[in-house]
Amino acid sequence: MDRLEQAIESNKRAVDEYVLRLLPERHETKEVRLLYSMMRDYPLRPSKGLRPSMCILTCQALGGHLEDALATAAALELFQNWILIHDDVEDCSLMRRGQPVLHLKYSVPLSINAGDALHGRTWGAVLDNERLLGVEKTLLLAKEFRRMTDETTEGQHIELSWIHQNKWDLKEEDYYALVRKKTAWYTCVSPCRMGAVIANADKKIIKDLIPFGLDLGVAFQITDDLLNLVGDEKKYGKELGGDIAEGKRTLMLIRLLNTCSPEDRVRVLKIVGKPRGGKTQDNIESVIDMMTNYGVLEYAKEKASSFASRARRKYQEIFGSAPNKKAVETLSRLIDFMVERQW
Amino acid sequence: MDRLEQAIESNKRAVDEYVLRLLPERHETKEVRLLYSMMRDYPLRPSKGLRPSMCILTCQALGGHLEDALATAAALELFQNWILIHDDVEDCSLMRRGQPVLHLKYSVPLSINAGDALHGRTWGAVLDNERLLGVEKTLLLAKEFRRMTDETTEGQHIELSWIHQNKWDLKEEDYYALVRKKTAWYTCVSPCRMGAVIANADKKIIKDLIPFGLDLGVAFQITDDLLNLVGDEKKYGKELGGDIAEGKRTLMLIRLLNTCSPEDRVRVLKIVGKPRGGKTQDNIESVIDMMTNYGVLEYAKEKASSFASRARRKYQEIFGSAPNKKAVETLSRLIDFMVERQW
Repeated sequence: MDRLEQAIESNKRAVDEYVLRLLPERHETKEVRLLYSMMRDYPLRPSKGLRPSMCILTCQALGGHLEDALATAAALELFQNWILIHDDVEDCSLMRRGQPVLHLKYSVPLSINAGDALHGRTWGAVLDNERLLGVEKTLLLAKEFRRMTDETTEGQHIELSWIHQNKWDLKEEDYYALVRKKTAWYTCVSPCRMGAVIANADKKIIKDLIPFGLDLGVAFQITDDLLNLVGDEKKYGKELGGDIAEGKRTLMLIRLLNTCSPEDRVRVLKIVGKPRGGKTQDNIESVIDMMTNYGVLEYAKEKASSFASRARRKYQEIFGSAPNKKAVETLSRLIDFMVERQW
Repeated sequence: MDRLEQAIESNKRAVDEYVLRLLPERHETKEVRLLYSMMRDYPLRPSKGLRPSMCILTCQALGGHLEDALATAAALELFQNWILIHDDVEDCSLMRRGQPVLHLKYSVPLSINAGDALHGRTWGAVLDNERLLGVEKTLLLAKEFRRMTDETTEGQHIELSWIHQNKWDLKEEDYYALVRKKTAWYTCVSPCRMGAVIANADKKIIKDLIPFGLDLGVAFQITDDLLNLVGDEKKYGKELGGDIAEGKRTLMLIRLLNTCSPEDRVRVLKIVGKPRGGKTQDNIESVIDMMTNYGVLEYAKEKASSFASRARRKYQEIFGSAPNKKAVETLSRLIDFMVERQW
C-alpha cells in the first residue's frame, strides 16, 4: 500500500470512529434505535472518505495536527451522508456504494427524516470543536459550514430545476457554474479552508483556497460523471449510466447536444426527455455510444485534465512553502487521485 | 386588539422582516431566485409566530431586550418552516396555512432541497448572534439548537415509524413521549431556554424551563390535534380530519382504540389502517363521530387542561420574581392562548 492509500485509510478509520461515536447503537427507545441504525447505514458502507482526508491533509500540510481536525472531518463526513440520502430520494436513485439506496430499504419519509437528523448531527460535530479549539475558531469553522451548506443547496436546486423544467438549452459554462456550487464547495473548497483555519493559516491562504478548490472540484465532478458512464460498476458502487437515467446534465451530455448533428440531437433529446422509468438499457447505451462516436468522452477527459492542471498550479503557489513537506506531498497525490481515479 | 395580540403581531413583524432579509428576492442566477421564492413561501403565509414570541417574551420577562432575541427568534421561525416543508412531504399533506403544500406547487425533489436550504439558513441565523451577543453566548444558543434538532428529528422518526409499521398497540404514555420530542422541544422548551440564555438568566431557571416547556408543549399538541378534528378549517389552515387521513397517532385515537368496544375497535382499525388515499370523507367523519360518542374529545380536552395547569404552576415558580412584570403578564396570556386557542 502506498503512502496516499495509507493516509486515506488511517484518516478514514479515525473519522469513522468519531462519526460512529456520534451515532450510538444503543438507545432506550426502540424506534430511536432504528433511526440511529438508518443514520449509520451510509457511513458504514465502503467509501473513500476523500473530503475528510482533504481537510486533515490540508491541516497537516499547513502545520496543524490530525486530532485538531477530527471533529471537523467527521462533520464533513456527516454532511456528505445527509446530502447523499436526500440526493438519492430527489434523483430516484437505485444504488449507493454498492447497495440499494436508503429509501428503498426504509421508505421515503423515514429517509428524509434520517437525512435531517444527520444534518443536525453535522452541526453538532462542528460545535464539538469548542473543547479542543476554543470558541473563536469553532465559530470560524461554523461560518465556513454555513457558506458550504448555502452553496451546496443552491447548486442542488439548480440541477433539480433543470430536470424539473426539462431544460436542455445549456452551455458548458452553465455546467461549470452548477458544479462549482453543487460539488466543489463541499468536496474541495470548504474541506481545505477548514483544514487551513484549524492550522492557523494566513488569511491569504484561506482566501486562495477558494479558486484552487473550485477548479479541483470541477475536475473531480467531470471525472465522477465519466466514471458513471464507463467505470467499473462494482468499484464505482452506482448503476452505470444512472446519470442518463436520472436526467443529469453532465458536461458530456451538454457537449453532445451542442455538437452532434440535428438528427442525432433529436434522437438524444427523445431519450433523455423520457421520465426515469421510461428509459431502457438500450436507450442509455445508445446515448453512451453517441458520446463515444462524437468524441465527447475524450473531450470531457481533456477538460477535467485542464481544470486539474490549473488547480495544480494554484496548489504550488499555496503549498510551495508549507511547513509539513510530507503532508504536502501526500495531499498532492490525493489531488492526482481525485482526477485520475478509476473508481 | 389586546396586549397579547399586539405583542404577538409586533414580534412577528420584526421577526418576519429579519427572516425575509435572509431570503432575498434578488439573485444573479434565475434558478436560485426560484429557490429563494420557495424558501419564502411558507414564511410569507399567514401564521401566528408563537415560537419566536415565546423566545422574545421569555427574554423580555427575564430582563432582556427584543433586539437581542431577534436573530434567535428568526432562526426558530426558519427551523419551524423547514420542519413543516419536510413534514408535509413525509405525511403527504395537502394543505398548509390555508394553501396547497409546497411540494404540490413545486415538486417533491425541489421541496426537500428547499427545506434543506432553510435548515442551513437556520444555523446561519443562529451564528448571526455573534455580532450582538458575542461568541460565548452564540455558542450556548447553538448548543440549544443542536439539542432541539436532535429531539425533533427523533420525535418525527418515532411518529413516522409507527405509521410505517402500522403500529396501533400504543399507550397514552407513548403519545406523551412522542409529543415531548416531536413538538415540545422546538415549540416551548428551546424557545424559552434561548430567551433565558439571551437575558443572562440563572442556570436554575434555564434548567427549570425544561419540565415547564415539556408540559406546555404536550398541552399545545393535544389542543392542535383537537383543532384538526373540530376546528374552523379556514382559520386552522389545514384540511379537517387530515390527521386521521395521514394515520397520525393522536391522544384521541389512542384513547378511542383503548376504550371502545371490541367491535368498534375493529371498525376503527379497518379505517385508520387504510392507506392515505383509501380513506373516504365518510370514513373520517365516522371516526370523529365515535370519538365524540365515547367522550374521547372531552377526555383529551381535560388532559390538555391538566398539562397546562401543571405548566402554569411551574411558570409561577420560574417567573414569579422575574424583573419585567409586563412581559411576564403577556407571556402568561400567551400560555393561555396556546392551550385555549380556537385556531
